[in-house]
Amino acid sequence: MSLTPRIDGDRLLGRLDAFAGIGATPAGGVNRQAFSVEDRRARRLLAELALERGFTVFQDHIANLFIRREGTDATLPPLLIGSHLDSQPTGGRFDGALGTLSAFEVLEALEDAQAETRMPVEVVAWANEEGSRFAPGVMGSMAFTGADTAAWKSIVGADGAVLAAELKATITALPEAALRPTGMPISGYIELHIEQGPSLEKEQLPIGVVTAVQGTRWLEVSIQGTAGHAGTTDLAYRRDPMVAAISAIHRLQTTIMPLDSSARLTVGRIAARPGSINAIPQSVAFTVDIRHPRAEQLDLVEAEVRQVCAAEAEAQHCTAMIKRSFDMPGAAFSPDMVKTVEEAASSLRLQFKHMISGAFHDALFLARVAPAAMIFVPCRDGLSHNEAEYVEPGHAVIGARVLLRTAIMAASPR
Amino acid sequence: MSLTPRIDGDRLLGRLDAFAGIGATPAGGVNRQAFSVEDRRARRLLAELALERGFTVFQDHIANLFIRREGTDATLPPLLIGSHLDSQPTGGRFDGALGTLSAFEVLEALEDAQAETRMPVEVVAWANEEGSRFAPGVMGSMAFTGADTAAWKSIVGADGAVLAAELKATITALPEAALRPTGMPISGYIELHIEQGPSLEKEQLPIGVVTAVQGTRWLEVSIQGTAGHAGTTDLAYRRDPMVAAISAIHRLQTTIMPLDSSARLTVGRIAARPGSINAIPQSVAFTVDIRHPRAEQLDLVEAEVRQVCAAEAEAQHCTAMIKRSFDMPGAAFSPDMVKTVEEAASSLRLQFKHMISGAFHDALFLARVAPAAMIFVPCRDGLSHNEAEYVEPGHAVIGARVLLRTAIMAASPR
Repeated sequence: MSLTPRIDGDRLLGRLDAFAGIGATPAGGVNRQAFSVEDRRARRLLAELALERGFTVFQDHIANLFIRREGTDATLPPLLIGSHLDSQPTGGRFDGALGTLSAFEVLEALEDAQAETRMPVEVVAWANEEGSRFAPGVMGSMAFTGADTAAWKSIVGADGAVLAAELKATITALPEAALRPTGMPISGYIELHIEQGPSLEKEQLPIGVVTAVQGTRWLEVSIQGTAGHAGTTDLAYRRDPMVAAISAIHRLQTTIMPLDSSARLTVGRIAARPGSINAIPQSVAFTVDIRHPRAEQLDLVEAEVRQVCAAEAEAQHCTAMIKRSFDMPGAAFSPDMVKTVEEAASSLRLQFKHMISGAFHDALFLARVAPAAMIFVPCRDGLSHNEAEYVEPGHAVIGARVLLRTAIMAASPR
Repeated sequence: MSLTPRIDGDRLLGRLDAFAGIGATPAGGVNRQAFSVEDRRARRLLAELALERGFTVFQDHIANLFIRREGTDATLPPLLIGSHLDSQPTGGRFDGALGTLSAFEVLEALEDAQAETRMPVEVVAWANEEGSRFAPGVMGSMAFTGADTAAWKSIVGADGAVLAAELKATITALPEAALRPTGMPISGYIELHIEQGPSLEKEQLPIGVVTAVQGTRWLEVSIQGTAGHAGTTDLAYRRDPMVAAISAIHRLQTTIMPLDSSARLTVGRIAARPGSINAIPQSVAFTVDIRHPRAEQLDLVEAEVRQVCAAEAEAQHCTAMIKRSFDMPGAAFSPDMVKTVEEAASSLRLQFKHMISGAFHDALFLARVAPAAMIFVPCRDGLSHNEAEYVEPGHAVIGARVLLRTAIMAASPR
């Protein structure tokens, strides 16, 4: 006879504390970058907890870590639940860890209750989600879903370490986890994550039901003018790339987002060369990060950026060069899986709203191979990738409860 | 019996070539930074040429170099004519060298003609005008006119060299030049220089009669906002310092110079922190170089920069900090000396226009202690501080002729 599976809030919060101690920074954050000694310690702790409960532990060739609890129908591929354990260099305690440890709590809750699921359920900790030590990020989920990883062999990290060597050492450090091929059929994927934005907190909602991940493009704009002396050059004789860049960015900032609430446009980097206080610059370079859930709108925003930059450059007798340096198509999550999350939240009498994720997540790649969904919980002031990242304990537990309900429904479809 | 003194154009152009060979760069420019081995070679060559002609050579404790030709009235302080021999690291062949070598040509022309002047005439090559190796620049003329040089003892150069040691080595390398105290009474100062801007060339005028040097202020603006994720943060929740900075600079660029043709406003440096493509910056810092010949207008422009930055920061819920990092008052040249330059140009049937120098020059400091003036000649495309800097040979010779006429009149006042 099985009981109703229940999240043990104290156990989950204790685990979050324990993992936050691995790579803890003096400012209260976490430095647990991919394939580092700290990352290996976190993987080891999770594997040991799993083995103590009698679960099976696997890893694949990119160091994704899996913890398996069998279902009743051995012919069905597993339902995956999880997130990642690696962090930014000055990261927070919850980004990734909350989703991974909540997924493990779900597995323990099922085990505590001796609950049966039709599908096997596997907790997954995706390798190198952050990409801060070894770019690109979301390496584990990309490899799992079939990305070509040949070029990764030569990757050297921000600290000079060689990816191939660090990856091998990470896998070798966990001999208890049997090695299995990278990638396999799965029945679905559910990921709990902190919002990494302020809207749930501002709207006082405990749950966000994520329906899609935005597409992202990065444009690198360089405007070339003519360097000149700040004092001697009359306005009429200037070919000032700073004036062109400022005018272009100003037009984009005052039109794109104000006219389309689904669009995002961010200028995060800007520099002038030679960068002398008393010289009109020779050139000004800046980046534009644009996002939109709809691919055709992303195309329109990119076209607008190109047109505005070219026109403002020309108005100053300058020239603009624009390069697209990154293009990540968005993905809509499976309507069925999204509905399952909604039902889980409703059954717990939780208010929620539909959200589009502006950040990448491993779920973006899983959505291409299986029904996937994400559950967001609020984080204080929207802060993430920041040592001050904070999630109310109650919100962490609520998120785990929604994950448990969703997983139970998804793993035992009617 | 004396002849009419005449500039020997071939001799002057030959000298310009010879000095351009000292520190010549592959791209056709000059790297002859202050107190370097190349700077010492140039000083030595000028001193040797002077000694060959029987002139007396002096230097002072900051390594200003003087070449003296006596006048008929030993009670009068000398008229100084000259410029500087040091260059930017990727500098041009004419910036400084034209004025110094033309002044020496004037001295030779007087000597060739056995012409008498009432005042002694001294050619001066001011030390470290550029300041690119050892900041600040215009060191020689500042020290000569009484600046407090105590703090300079500890200056370390861009290349790690110690100013005090390099200065000592520079002076020691020229034992032929007698050491005399820094600073002395002078009757006047005249400096020929390239315009370092495009207006004479565009207006096809061979001569600019400089009436004043603009005042300059540097403001360093820092706008603090809140870092955030480029994808997850809605427009409504952003406190984006880039939006504030862009709006502020845009307002300043579209108002200050367009409304006042004597004003200059240049943003030469800008940077965002942390400078991540996919993050709303935490802060954006930029510099504003403002210039105006009238001190009260400079005050008004500075007040406008402060008001606009504060207002645009506030509109984005950011905060602005503004620091004045440099304040160099302008100077009007002596109307009498300016009139003498005009008469010299007119007597040579040369078209000229009055100009305000937007650049610093040693003359700015000399104007505070004696009647001073400057003569500008056109440079191609207004380029200076650039290896491609170029002056038409005819313009170089015309500039020297105006300098000669001016010096003759100024050194023998009626």
